[in-house]
Amino acid sequence: MPDAIKVYDQLVKKIKEVTILESCESVLSWDERVNMPIKGAEHRANQMALLARLSHEMFTDPEIGRMLSDLKNSELAKGKDTPEAANIREIVYAYDKAVKIPKEWVEEYTRTTTMSQNAWVEARRKNDFALFLPHLKKVVELKKQYAGMVGYSNEPYDALLDDFEPGATVAGVKEIFGRFRNELVELVGRIKESSVRPDSSVLTRDFPIEVQQTFGREAVAAIGYDLEAGRIDQTAHPFCSGFGPGDVRITTRFNKNYFPQAFFGLLHEAGHGIYNQNLPREHFGTPLGRAVSLGIHESQSRMWENMVGRSRLAWQYFFPKAKEAFAQALAGVSADDLYFAINEVKPSLIRVEADEITYNLHIILRFELEHAIMKGEVKIEDLPAAWNEKFESFFAIVPPDDASGCMQDIHWSAGYFGYFPTYTLGNLYAAQFFARAQKDIPGLEVKFANGEFSPLKKWLSEQIHRRGRLYRADKLVEMVTGKALSHEPLMSYLKGKFTPLYRL
Amino acid sequence: MPDAIKVYDQLVKKIKEVTILESCESVLSWDERVNMPIKGAEHRANQMALLARLSHEMFTDPEIGRMLSDLKNSELAKGKDTPEAANIREIVYAYDKAVKIPKEWVEEYTRTTTMSQNAWVEARRKNDFALFLPHLKKVVELKKQYAGMVGYSNEPYDALLDDFEPGATVAGVKEIFGRFRNELVELVGRIKESSVRPDSSVLTRDFPIEVQQTFGREAVAAIGYDLEAGRIDQTAHPFCSGFGPGDVRITTRFNKNYFPQAFFGLLHEAGHGIYNQNLPREHFGTPLGRAVSLGIHESQSRMWENMVGRSRLAWQYFFPKAKEAFAQALAGVSADDLYFAINEVKPSLIRVEADEITYNLHIILRFELEHAIMKGEVKIEDLPAAWNEKFESFFAIVPPDDASGCMQDIHWSAGYFGYFPTYTLGNLYAAQFFARAQKDIPGLEVKFANGEFSPLKKWLSEQIHRRGRLYRADKLVEMVTGKALSHEPLMSYLKGKFTPLYRL
Repeated sequence: MPDAIKVYDQLVKKIKEVTILESCESVLSWDERVNMPIKGAEHRANQMALLARLSHEMFTDPEIGRMLSDLKNSELAKGKDTPEAANIREIVYAYDKAVKIPKEWVEEYTRTTTMSQNAWVEARRKNDFALFLPHLKKVVELKKQYAGMVGYSNEPYDALLDDFEPGATVAGVKEIFGRFRNELVELVGRIKESSVRPDSSVLTRDFPIEVQQTFGREAVAAIGYDLEAGRIDQTAHPFCSGFGPGDVRITTRFNKNYFPQAFFGLLHEAGHGIYNQNLPREHFGTPLGRAVSLGIHESQSRMWENMVGRSRLAWQYFFPKAKEAFAQALAGVSADDLYFAINEVKPSLIRVEADEITYNLHIILRFELEHAIMKGEVKIEDLPAAWNEKFESFFAIVPPDDASGCMQDIHWSAGYFGYFPTYTLGNLYAAQFFARAQKDIPGLEVKFANGEFSPLKKWLSEQIHRRGRLYRADKLVEMVTGKALSHEPLMSYLKGKFTPLYRL
Repeated sequence: MPDAIKVYDQLVKKIKEVTILESCESVLSWDERVNMPIKGAEHRANQMALLARLSHEMFTDPEIGRMLSDLKNSELAKGKDTPEAANIREIVYAYDKAVKIPKEWVEEYTRTTTMSQNAWVEARRKNDFALFLPHLKKVVELKKQYAGMVGYSNEPYDALLDDFEPGATVAGVKEIFGRFRNELVELVGRIKESSVRPDSSVLTRDFPIEVQQTFGREAVAAIGYDLEAGRIDQTAHPFCSGFGPGDVRITTRFNKNYFPQAFFGLLHEAGHGIYNQNLPREHFGTPLGRAVSLGIHESQSRMWENMVGRSRLAWQYFFPKAKEAFAQALAGVSADDLYFAINEVKPSLIRVEADEITYNLHIILRFELEHAIMKGEVKIEDLPAAWNEKFESFFAIVPPDDASGCMQDIHWSAGYFGYFPTYTLGNLYAAQFFARAQKDIPGLEVKFANGEFSPLKKWLSEQIHRRGRLYRADKLVEMVTGKALSHEPLMSYLKGKFTPLYRL
């Protein structure tokens, strides 16, 4: 046992270095999106490729393999819910995957997805799927190869899903999404038939950007994003990037004539940021110092954006401030008007502009399609037709073109098959966690009305953030909520919110 | 020979990787100074230390040593002014130095200088040299050890000088600085006795920062700094950082009530930036793709800042624009008034605020002192007294305290002994290059009046930038100007400029 501890300590030291090196890559990637002058792109690609290669080499060092062999059957690995056991489990898991992927595949994949993303930009701009087609085919081919190399339990798509949501399976996702989808479609139908509509034109009035900046900054600070351990920048596509303890940055984009864009975007990214800022610093560099999965990460951003940020009681707090900041735009507008406006439900073409309810239909559609692609049931050349058909059946809208249809998202061009489901998983986790928080913290939402967001943040930190990757997502959900993941908490949250709003 | 070429190509490939890795460190270092939230400092230090260690390991790889052994006596190394010969010469030079320094020393040095910089900040703030003393002693001790390890021709200080200005020696610098100093003191004396004085109060009027930003941006673009391959940010201490081809960034600081700070600072940093942006891209990663030395680098920044930026004819171009931009501040001010104001000569306490003439006295003073320290002729505990005594003899001013005396600069706390001389070497190189450019480009300065700065930029690029490190500084000066470096061009430039201004 003392020997195993020694080996474990050496392993942790080596793994921490890999993480630190990866975190350098994160800084360069953040800088690329936030600051880099256009002519720096080629050199930046060379820098990123070198760092990626070096950290891959460092991680797949056979020395690490030997340490893991020593450790994996040691007593240390058998501890129940111990940091050591969890770290060994997760490092073995990641290592076994990494060593199965030959360097040549990684290089070809990197080259292919870089080119395919460029092709996607052009194809979308020209609204010409044919330009994207050969690239997407190649990406899918490589993804299938990847699944074959790392292995899977039932079908290749399981391997892809597992990269973003470790432990998730097609069977599990299909079951939960299937039930959720039926109830969602029904709810959307009832809302459509409602005669009540918000006046959302108030959101498109004049909201000066400098005022939005201050207002948004104060809001993210209020919910608990630490600006001394982060910063806010502007980018075309908002994101959150955590480099390590004390440095977790978020970005947003401002639209002078559309208030929700920056504000809810900021709450969303700050939700990710708060998670990263509250990971256990003492475990930084090991799996214990990391977030559980993309889905759990998304649960944090969605909770702050929607369950808190779009709640009536939080607007009790925000509304007087908004009135003061945007006096002209909000003249004659009541808190209830604004609350309804920011919660308008309206089937629409574009995922990133969708409301809290229909957003999930966008995701389920993508999940079903990418799953069919990986099974070979949908050919890439038939993707536009398959997309439009499914879209009509979900939304009763036919996309007018592929640019606003199957080419609207960057994900597939970047090789992110298996990523989309984590968005709706995030919503599901969020609702289930939130329902539990409501039980654990009496008067939780009433506190929002007074600007008291710290009880929720504290609860999330204790229950989720500070645990790092001690548990996989399914186990964590059970630990925190006492139940397996289900679509019911989210459905009941949505019904509870939208039934009175739309007088259903 | 074909074998040598093969080895050379392999060497270049390996060296390029080292440079790319170092350039990642530059991005992190830039980010630290420009963007990093305060709580990110500890993690950033870990990132930087890891990258530094990895690039050191990569560069001192024995495989590189073997390649260099093969190459150093090959025909390839004997080529006259060939890129291959120059690259081999410079890589051998750097490699031989690097392998002489044990990792333990590097670690101790990094730790010591980090702590010593912190101590310096506090000691300067409290104006208490005693707080800084033990740290500075340790730094000097380590620097002496360093000189002993890498070796030197005549005295330890030679080794330190060589790090910043390869090939420079105490003997050479002493001789040129000695002669220059005498003539400088004499010129300063005559200016002091002059009855003419500019009205520099005009520079301290109200110059709105946003207007300064636009004005400065247009000025650096006008002299040839490519903003698509760079950007401008704000930092407490302005600097220029070149990550690689297409990405060379500059920073500045704005003072609403002091126009010269940001404007000449920007021209200065843009001068560095133009050099970096015009290094031969095809040699990036090898010495041929690098600047010659700190002194040659400084020659570019000083030339654009002073010889161009503070010239009467450039202000023929800038003045009407300035009048328009700063209509209120410059009301009733003539181009001649402004020209005299930005060229006021006035002995003062602080180096970074000094004028074009007395600046060099600040440098020569530091050179003489640090040289004496390294020779053991001045003890660290006696530094404040030695500084004040010398300062009085140079400037006829006694520093009121150590904060504005021997503790005003960060350099020594960071271990930069041998760095200061490169500032005045830069001025000397600049004047000698500029005199040559005047010969080669008829009507050079008259062109400035029309905003034509590209002939000078083109000349500098051909003569200096595009050559990378093909020649050492002394050789480059001879190649470009036909003569060895001398103080005469700078003296004659200064006399030519200030005699009419001060009616001497």
